[in-house]
Amino acid sequence: MKWLSPISSYGLRGGRVVRKPSGYITITTDYGLKDPYVGILKGVIKSIAPSVYIIDLVHEVEPFDIAGASYIIASSYKEFPEGTIHLVVVDPGVGSSRRPIAIVTRRYYFVGPDNGVLIPAAERDGIEMVINLDNPEYHRKPVSHTFHGRDIFAPAAAYIASGVSPEKLGTHVKPEELVRPPIEFICVKLRRSVRTKIIHIDRFGNAVTSCTHEEFETGAGINIGARVMIRARHGESYKAIYKESFSLVRPGEMVVYRGSLGYIEIGIYMGSLSRSTGLKRGDEILIEVIEQ
Amino acid sequence: MKWLSPISSYGLRGGRVVRKPSGYITITTDYGLKDPYVGILKGVIKSIAPSVYIIDLVHEVEPFDIAGASYIIASSYKEFPEGTIHLVVVDPGVGSSRRPIAIVTRRYYFVGPDNGVLIPAAERDGIEMVINLDNPEYHRKPVSHTFHGRDIFAPAAAYIASGVSPEKLGTHVKPEELVRPPIEFICVKLRRSVRTKIIHIDRFGNAVTSCTHEEFETGAGINIGARVMIRARHGESYKAIYKESFSLVRPGEMVVYRGSLGYIEIGIYMGSLSRSTGLKRGDEILIEVIEQ
Amino acid sequence: MKWLSPISSYGLRGGRVVRKPSGYITITTDYGLKDPYVGILKGVIKSIAPSVYIIDLVHEVEPFDIAGASYIIASSYKEFPEGTIHLVVVDPGVGSSRRPIAIVTRRYYFVGPDNGVLIPAAERDGIEMVINLDNPEYHRKPVSHTFHGRDIFAPAAAYIASGVSPEKLGTHVKPEELVRPPIEFICVKLRRSVRTKIIHIDRFGNAVTSCTHEEFETGAGINIGARVMIRARHGESYKAIYKESFSLVRPGEMVVYRGSLGYIEIGIYMGSLSRSTGLKRGDEILIEVIEQ
Repeated sequence: MKWLSPISSYGLRGGRVVRKPSGYITITTDYGLKDPYVGILKGVIKSIAPSVYIIDLVHEVEPFDIAGASYIIASSYKEFPEGTIHLVVVDPGVGSSRRPIAIVTRRYYFVGPDNGVLIPAAERDGIEMVINLDNPEYHRKPVSHTFHGRDIFAPAAAYIASGVSPEKLGTHVKPEELVRPPIEFICVKLRRSVRTKIIHIDRFGNAVTSCTHEEFETGAGINIGARVMIRARHGESYKAIYKESFSLVRPGEMVVYRGSLGYIEIGIYMGSLSRSTGLKRGDEILIEVIEQ
Repeated sequence: MKWLSPISSYGLRGGRVVRKPSGYITITTDYGLKDPYVGILKGVIKSIAPSVYIIDLVHEVEPFDIAGASYIIASSYKEFPEGTIHLVVVDPGVGSSRRPIAIVTRRYYFVGPDNGVLIPAAERDGIEMVINLDNPEYHRKPVSHTFHGRDIFAPAAAYIASGVSPEKLGTHVKPEELVRPPIEFICVKLRRSVRTKIIHIDRFGNAVTSCTHEEFETGAGINIGARVMIRARHGESYKAIYKESFSLVRPGEMVVYRGSLGYIEIGIYMGSLSRSTGLKRGDEILIEVIEQ
Repeated sequence: MKWLSPISSYGLRGGRVVRKPSGYITITTDYGLKDPYVGILKGVIKSIAPSVYIIDLVHEVEPFDIAGASYIIASSYKEFPEGTIHLVVVDPGVGSSRRPIAIVTRRYYFVGPDNGVLIPAAERDGIEMVINLDNPEYHRKPVSHTFHGRDIFAPAAAYIASGVSPEKLGTHVKPEELVRPPIEFICVKLRRSVRTKIIHIDRFGNAVTSCTHEEFETGAGINIGARVMIRARHGESYKAIYKESFSLVRPGEMVVYRGSLGYIEIGIYMGSLSRSTGLKRGDEILIEVIEQ
């Protein structure tokens, strides 16, 4: 029983490792579902790469919310077959001089604007190559000022999916020259405490922080079972316990727990944290141990 | 001209009927569309069963609304090719001891938690076998406390789709030991009247009751053309007529009619019942004939 | 490098051109995402045409908003491989005597109700043949009063996709007998001004007008760089500049620009026009040059 898709594989050609695209493209955007933009991306992709299978990740990212989209893709990318191409179009700088890029990582491909949105995911997987998508031969013509998703990003993802080497799509960029990820992606490890931001409120009202399990436990030394205080910007504070899961406390109790996507989350069992507290996306919080 | 998919079929192997999966999986969840959970289910499914075709049914089920999800799947399951696997993840008990199950029915497969959500659909099609998905060999490791959709249910659906016998996924459960469907799924047939609940308000403001056409007509003896009174919990009552379709009354008139998905519905032609009355999901109502 | 899908092509049979379906169906509806209706359409399509690939365009069209759906499909249809079948179900007249139709255009197929919704797209591509879908052999039985999407339109799209000639699905209709598109689809070209309606507000708060780039520039003689006044129904007026893109003005400035889908749009750079003004879908506006 093999977990990873058999159609994803590696080969050796001319002495260097060649990753094969898996045939999957995921799409994450802030286009929403009331406009035809997402459908159009798919039309463009299938026009170039008819046999690709497209999976919607999230299209309801808040308009221009780079941090929120960073979280979506960083928490999800590795659940797809190796060789999957992750297309992310959250692009407040469309029409300006920000670069369109493709990042080849250890096991995946990422395509999107050079505004930091791809970095948390790509760095986690290990960046191997970055390409500035500046070869007009692989753009849809004419390139509009405002819809690079259709004209540059979707074609790039589709060409990679259909076997075109990313290097053909443009010129190399040094990874250290990439725009850094948004500041919301922060997890400062202090002594038995972390300073972080709420990067996402999920459908059930749970708050997702920017700290991974490892940063929280190994990094800051906060252990399962610890009693913690959550301090928010305007002086509010909340007592909670750190558990493996939200279902390990009593209904109505506040709990800090290992979120299933790799990040530390805060919730209220059988309740909604976001409705019960004033905590919201973007809030800076301090979580500190009061008893361990 | 054959309605049912030619790729779904039955065979006889070793003397017993063997149903072949159709290659389709439908997904119904309360995950919503702002989080990456649904996309992740698809990544997991395609990692195991690359050639399966996934169809979203509904992901905007109200959080933890077992009755609402029951209605969605019971009203829709039979519109898909025989052998389709219906995956339903509405699971308030995740992390507790509720069982993850697969139900093999006469023509379909159902995968989800043992909380009653699958029962109305499965019983309608005819339950043939129930499996407790307790074989860890077919789980995604490590199994999280809070995301069994990814770790247990999606893999089970994918393995069945790829031809693994449901019996390999765990141990047999007696159908009579399953958790019963939610109480909202009620249709008490009285003399020319029914007591039922509003199980769903659709996009157009129509109220869907828990009574099927047959229960309403043959069971309670309410005939097309009957004038009825709808009595709600807090004393409100509404006069309506029972028709085959909402378009058979005058605009603005209230009508009880045969919903296209098999259940009796209440609406206002060219209007919105839910906006014009106080009726809402979960309300108990009595519909009685006043003139037939 | 060929932009259009290689699986779409034309042939010559018996002396006349025969278009081959591409294997793609797009779906646009006002069904929303809380009900199982969209999933059911897909189940019906895949039951008939197992190898078709379905792409959701928009399902959040406002209930019964024929004009809004007209815009969605007119602005998107040509982004899909030639031979794609565009299925549009926004159908306030379901159950009445309005005709279900299929329109074969120069490069595409359109399936939906004869209420004008298909006309702007179909006329733009060039209507070649119109069929009244009145052959019951290709309906799902029994045909309900209220769900023709499932019973007539989805089967028609699926049969065409699987190679059945549209002419088999019913009888010919003269294009000039079709119901005209909704009045909202209006662009009256005056001297250096246009009278039009706001046909759509997109996710970012931009207003889409019913005038194409050509109508605006060549038709009304409004040139890039012109300063314009936008006059709304209740006397409000707004000054703006006409540019190629919204990103060519200063943040906060109002701009009339060439929308990326072919229509003239109005927006506020880095802001939301719909929130900053009272302008909304359906509003009639006059855009006139004040300095060119």
